Amino acid sequence: MEVWQLTSGFALDKLELGERPDAEPGPGEVLLEMRAASLNYRDLLTVRGGYGPRNTLPLIPLSDGVGEVVATGAGVERVAVGDRVAPTFFPEWIGGDPTQAKFRTTLGGPLDGVLRRRMCIAADAVVRVPEHLSDAEAACLPCAGLTAWSAIATLGRVGPGDVVLVQGTGGVALFALQFAKIAGASVILTSSRDDKLARGRQLGADAVINYRTTPEWDKAVKALTGGAGCDHVVELGGAESLARSVRAVRIGGVISLIGVLSGADATFALPLVVMRNLRLQGVTVGSRDGFEAMCRAIATHRLHPVVDRVFRFKDAPKAFAAFAEGRHFGKICIGY
Amino acid sequence: MEVWQLTSGFALDKLELGERPDAEPGPGEVLLEMRAASLNYRDLLTVRGGYGPRNTLPLIPLSDGVGEVVATGAGVERVAVGDRVAPTFFPEWIGGDPTQAKFRTTLGGPLDGVLRRRMCIAADAVVRVPEHLSDAEAACLPCAGLTAWSAIATLGRVGPGDVVLVQGTGGVALFALQFAKIAGASVILTSSRDDKLARGRQLGADAVINYRTTPEWDKAVKALTGGAGCDHVVELGGAESLARSVRAVRIGGVISLIGVLSGADATFALPLVVMRNLRLQGVTVGSRDGFEAMCRAIATHRLHPVVDRVFRFKDAPKAFAAFAEGRHFGKICIGY
Amino acid sequence: MEVWQLTSGFALDKLELGERPDAEPGPGEVLLEMRAASLNYRDLLTVRGGYGPRNTLPLIPLSDGVGEVVATGAGVERVAVGDRVAPTFFPEWIGGDPTQAKFRTTLGGPLDGVLRRRMCIAADAVVRVPEHLSDAEAACLPCAGLTAWSAIATLGRVGPGDVVLVQGTGGVALFALQFAKIAGASVILTSSRDDKLARGRQLGADAVINYRTTPEWDKAVKALTGGAGCDHVVELGGAESLARSVRAVRIGGVISLIGVLSGADATFALPLVVMRNLRLQGVTVGSRDGFEAMCRAIATHRLHPVVDRVFRFKDAPKAFAAFAEGRHFGKICIGY
Amino acid sequence: MEVWQLTSGFALDKLELGERPDAEPGPGEVLLEMRAASLNYRDLLTVRGGYGPRNTLPLIPLSDGVGEVVATGAGVERVAVGDRVAPTFFPEWIGGDPTQAKFRTTLGGPLDGVLRRRMCIAADAVVRVPEHLSDAEAACLPCAGLTAWSAIATLGRVGPGDVVLVQGTGGVALFALQFAKIAGASVILTSSRDDKLARGRQLGADAVINYRTTPEWDKAVKALTGGAGCDHVVELGGAESLARSVRAVRIGGVISLIGVLSGADATFALPLVVMRNLRLQGVTVGSRDGFEAMCRAIATHRLHPVVDRVFRFKDAPKAFAAFAEGRHFGKICIGY
Repeated sequence: MEVWQLTSGFALDKLELGERPDAEPGPGEVLLEMRAASLNYRDLLTVRGGYGPRNTLPLIPLSDGVGEVVATGAGVERVAVGDRVAPTFFPEWIGGDPTQAKFRTTLGGPLDGVLRRRMCIAADAVVRVPEHLSDAEAACLPCAGLTAWSAIATLGRVGPGDVVLVQGTGGVALFALQFAKIAGASVILTSSRDDKLARGRQLGADAVINYRTTPEWDKAVKALTGGAGCDHVVELGGAESLARSVRAVRIGGVISLIGVLSGADATFALPLVVMRNLRLQGVTVGSRDGFEAMCRAIATHRLHPVVDRVFRFKDAPKAFAAFAEGRHFGKICIGY
Repeated sequence: MEVWQLTSGFALDKLELGERPDAEPGPGEVLLEMRAASLNYRDLLTVRGGYGPRNTLPLIPLSDGVGEVVATGAGVERVAVGDRVAPTFFPEWIGGDPTQAKFRTTLGGPLDGVLRRRMCIAADAVVRVPEHLSDAEAACLPCAGLTAWSAIATLGRVGPGDVVLVQGTGGVALFALQFAKIAGASVILTSSRDDKLARGRQLGADAVINYRTTPEWDKAVKALTGGAGCDHVVELGGAESLARSVRAVRIGGVISLIGVLSGADATFALPLVVMRNLRLQGVTVGSRDGFEAMCRAIATHRLHPVVDRVFRFKDAPKAFAAFAEGRHFGKICIGY
Repeated sequence: MEVWQLTSGFALDKLELGERPDAEPGPGEVLLEMRAASLNYRDLLTVRGGYGPRNTLPLIPLSDGVGEVVATGAGVERVAVGDRVAPTFFPEWIGGDPTQAKFRTTLGGPLDGVLRRRMCIAADAVVRVPEHLSDAEAACLPCAGLTAWSAIATLGRVGPGDVVLVQGTGGVALFALQFAKIAGASVILTSSRDDKLARGRQLGADAVINYRTTPEWDKAVKALTGGAGCDHVVELGGAESLARSVRAVRIGGVISLIGVLSGADATFALPLVVMRNLRLQGVTVGSRDGFEAMCRAIATHRLHPVVDRVFRFKDAPKAFAAFAEGRHFGKICIGY
Repeated sequence: MEVWQLTSGFALDKLELGERPDAEPGPGEVLLEMRAASLNYRDLLTVRGGYGPRNTLPLIPLSDGVGEVVATGAGVERVAVGDRVAPTFFPEWIGGDPTQAKFRTTLGGPLDGVLRRRMCIAADAVVRVPEHLSDAEAACLPCAGLTAWSAIATLGRVGPGDVVLVQGTGGVALFALQFAKIAGASVILTSSRDDKLARGRQLGADAVINYRTTPEWDKAVKALTGGAGCDHVVELGGAESLARSVRAVRIGGVISLIGVLSGADATFALPLVVMRNLRLQGVTVGSRDGFEAMCRAIATHRLHPVVDRVFRFKDAPKAFAAFAEGRHFGKICIGY
């Protein structure tokens, strides 16, 4: 079986096409014929060795993908041969609040990921994806989609009439925009580029702010919300933008903290968080229950994840290179 | 009517004893004969002019006090003459989530506070206090007590078996310790002084850490919790200690952010908040509903707030001086 | 000032046009020039004496109305002259969970209601209504609208992808349908009449069931939801339909219990509630906070309440008669 | 391996001692040497055939037990040989909200239960029990304990100062009493026997009501709570008592519905549920996450489940007979 893997070190140019023996699904497992994958910032960091000794070689990268069940082991009832499913990022987080045990391991490092032709995996760790999605679209759900869903729906409980500020036009951001809209909220979108903001408007953004031409975008958010501030910020900018987000959000509001982009230490006005009764909520993907709820919502509203470009399996390194360039709007995918 | 007020400027030595005309309660108002007050860090900051132009002269300081209803205006049904009540810090926050409107004004600046013999106030903005408390004890509830209650009960939903880390032995900290215990939690208390930790143990702390002799106290917390970390941190140290708190708390845990002590910008590892799915919850006193729930819990458990010392009304400036010294354990109060 | 009132007894034909002296707004009060009202089943019951000794004569009926602020008393900051506002049903329920104190009194019995030309009322007990609504539409919000909002949003937390079953096409039902849709849910609507179901479809219902021709409508709901059952039932049929609702809803689902229509004792399979982990949630209008959140959502989505017919002030008894006939679809209103 | 089973029909006198082949733990499984079990009403119903065709023969009864891990299959990390663990009632309900899939199957019917010397079971479906408990005590946790925990902690969110009404002195009731107390609540206990009430007082009940001598016990509850009603009712009496419970609970209060004792249809005043904004919450055991949280709370407070009597394994039928008599206070157990 063909796989992309790192065997001799962590770096983009160490990605190599290799062979691994085919496996049979054991009891409770399924064998997937993979069809598509998608890239997240985490995958770039992983391949570059950014997670240190947590990951060991050899390693098959990528956490997000979709495949077809081609065989099932003994006792599998959740899914059947022919089902199109996506593996979950945290195989042991079925539902409920996160715990150390549920966070024990993750796909695409330290566990081998989805950048291979076939994979065996616990049936408990896959979710059926909505039928109306292409393979590439479905491959965007496990991390990017679910992180946005957890922020907006599970943890944020965004509802009709709320105003949500979404930062940027990356994969999570566009999902957050789409989910906030189907939850009945208004969305303010920020970006440094007007062309991306224009596309954000087409996806449903009610107001847009170019934070390059409007560096004091927190004041713009306040102006757009009658002075009160928005209800929810999907914070994807990290340390830099957080200092403004605590000013842009209303008293009692929520800031969803997302993304390893925010790699550095954050410095911001802590007293504002206290005095304005804010909630800063770290968001780390989500549970299988959340994944299933998200799929249902996507199916109900026939949402389509925004795919920028689909590379072929054999061109996987080019997909990483394109992702590293950062010019994409939406997700970079790989079709097998 | 005798009052302590600032008339010529903001500074501890500008506090002066003065006279204000007596008032009659209007419709919906009550007249209180004040009996005791207590000091919070906010009051010290207020007298020193720390809130800038938000407060104007003349100003009667102190938000936390207790008095007896001696007259009621037309239409008052909530309380009756003879009731012992405490004014609420946010007169317009009756219940529910905080909003800009509910936060519009506060007692003890910009509104005149409780450091006076008598005051007229909306009946909607007072709460009956538990009978078993002394006047000084009851005077500790409006800010210090309610902030701790909001952190532990309303927002934190601490329950049996949880492990709560409480930082320090100030007014809010000791209330948080007491409330966490009656909610069934275990409490780890930190302080820089062993004598204060010993007294904390007497109040129910299950484990104590001297953060001076154990500067890596986050590791001590993890060791005490089987490596997982505590469920909840009542963060009173501010910017400095937050960097350790995000390490001391378990995956999915909560950090209650309290106190203007945390005056400076905070710098801490934002990625840990994201990757560990933490919730940082700013806490700003609380609603009248919360106040009433707290009083009921205090009455049920016959808790006594920890009062360090009670000064006389005529010695109010000495109370401020003692507070500024910072040697107290529990609350500094003023008995009228 | 012209009023409709009951003075000599409780009955529809005892409604009489009378005069009351004009009032000036006291401190904290506003004077409203009323513009429109709407009828609820509760009002019919009130006029017929259905609430017994709780209500006394003379009584001005109707809880739901809208008016313009034409004068404000001392200290009023929440609203200004010229604002169009609706009085709240529970004048003392500002926010948070309901309590005995917050439920102490209600508009339109025992307090005089809105069926008069002008009324003085506490500024704390009014809410500004969305500008895009006609007076009659805005008059539908205080009870019918807010009850549905509490069921769907505040208590039910309906979100994208959920399936909500709404029973009937009365005022609350149509609001529930509209609110569930803007929250991202799918709606199944039931009625005994195909023409009403057709209009429900136009308002957004995704599926409809005529419970006369499909008496086992619980099975139809299960069939529509892949056998699992719906997530939420807005139960308006009362005792009779509840026995089926507990079968139509999914394991862990919610049934919002609404309406005095359900006047009799309910008999249903309690074990199903236990074994299927259901939540039966009584809903009683809602708080001022909820009212404001609802108005914001209505404004965001430019929803229009469904008004069946608007009678003139002088024809108020005809409005009651039309309501009693029960042929309406949506609300019966009175324009002043 | 020795087992108690039903092979020829459902009836207490059909319980027979038999032999089943020993099993080896497969991948992800553990082999338990059972040490104790406990009886619930559900088990009696099961043996008597009360669940109809859902259960098939042969069947090993009893859902609640505790055993020692004596062997582990491939890939098991959750537990180790030597751990004392209890199987979970719903093997597939790990955490989060209940769903049809999580409720798919249960121990002690249709799945073989714990009344056998050894059993193989998924490692995901066991929980380590607190060390300070005897085997018999630990065997009380899986259904009786967890149902009470779900009612009080997970779903009821009972907290300090709340007043909880617990009905009766059965297994779930006594757990509910103990859990409500460690959560800081006051408890009112009802029973038909003064001797049982006296023992309930020893366990911490703050007030007791003999519902035989005080048939209008709802009024007694109101009197004990200043007229407002209690916050929470743990409803174990079923159809009969529910009609009073809706009167005994405060506006906005919660009634936890528990137990197949409530076998018949319930008839009660639905309008009271609506007008008083009550929540009726069906409770069905709980998730593994809840089980673990309960164990932590039990360990923190060194609680001991109330064991009435422990029968020997060979006397299992006598345990059923004693349970059927209904004279016990606390749990009837079987020690292996």
